[in-house]
Amino acid sequence: MRVLGIDPGTAATGYGVVEEREGGLYAVRFGAITSPARLPFAQRLLRIYRELRTLLTDIRPDCAAVEAVFFARNVQSALRLGQARGVALLALAEAGIPIHEYSALEIKQAVTSYGQAQKEQVQAMVRLLLHLPEAPHPADAADALAVAICHQQAARLQARLRTS
Amino acid sequence: MRVLGIDPGTAATGYGVVEEREGGLYAVRFGAITSPARLPFAQRLLRIYRELRTLLTDIRPDCAAVEAVFFARNVQSALRLGQARGVALLALAEAGIPIHEYSALEIKQAVTSYGQAQKEQVQAMVRLLLHLPEAPHPADAADALAVAICHQQAARLQARLRTS
Repeated sequence: MRVLGIDPGTAATGYGVVEEREGGLYAVRFGAITSPARLPFAQRLLRIYRELRTLLTDIRPDCAAVEAVFFARNVQSALRLGQARGVALLALAEAGIPIHEYSALEIKQAVTSYGQAQKEQVQAMVRLLLHLPEAPHPADAADALAVAICHQQAARLQARLRTS
Repeated sequence: MRVLGIDPGTAATGYGVVEEREGGLYAVRFGAITSPARLPFAQRLLRIYRELRTLLTDIRPDCAAVEAVFFARNVQSALRLGQARGVALLALAEAGIPIHEYSALEIKQAVTSYGQAQKEQVQAMVRLLLHLPEAPHPADAADALAVAICHQQAARLQARLRTS
């Protein structure tokens, strides 16, 4: 199964594709879609949308995983995040890709077995879990890989529960 | 000039098209795109996006006007609003339609000459300004017409300043 994790944001939307092979998890591709602040806001959203569509065509994931957002620094950052997130969800819905949502706590627990983990710990664990030569950069890509790992683990657990 | 006003929202995205003819403003079309809460969230965004695209093809507005959001009840409502707003801005950007933003205060002042106006006053003034037989319903459509009127007035003022 190929899972696309997305960490939406206006300045940078992280993505990470995680596949299970021979019982292990591997990163197929990861990175971040950036959109320059000098562009009009709607043009920034258009760039995120178009690059995600290209990625979906290239990668053909079986499903996608996105963090469910419950907190934000303030209303303005929630609005900005919401706009980027809406465009990402739209691209997935258009491509007919099932979307799974996980809380920040669930993602951290899946990756580090510890809900209060720091950013650096998440990055270090993502590197280990995916057999990467170094910690994935930028941080948005690492976060996207983490939510993809979280869904891989949840799916594996569900499959085990079904067969037991 | 044909202006499309949009009042984005997940449950209902209001739209209103206002045209200037013989010195007066008229409503070409207005209504609301609704998306049932029983649908998965991304499917609701997809519906808003597709209906807006159809509307843009039918109506071919010269530009669009959207309220600039500075406040929200809380982070969750800002996130929900942001997601619907992002999808609306994306549809406009894809169609190459210039977007103008106005604050709630600017919109109320344009329509009622009074920044603290109530919803009902805005609806009543929109009806008068657009020569409608009755107050536009639903409220989301009236709000969308109000932001379109606001841009028509701002554009008229700018044109007057250029020629004086």
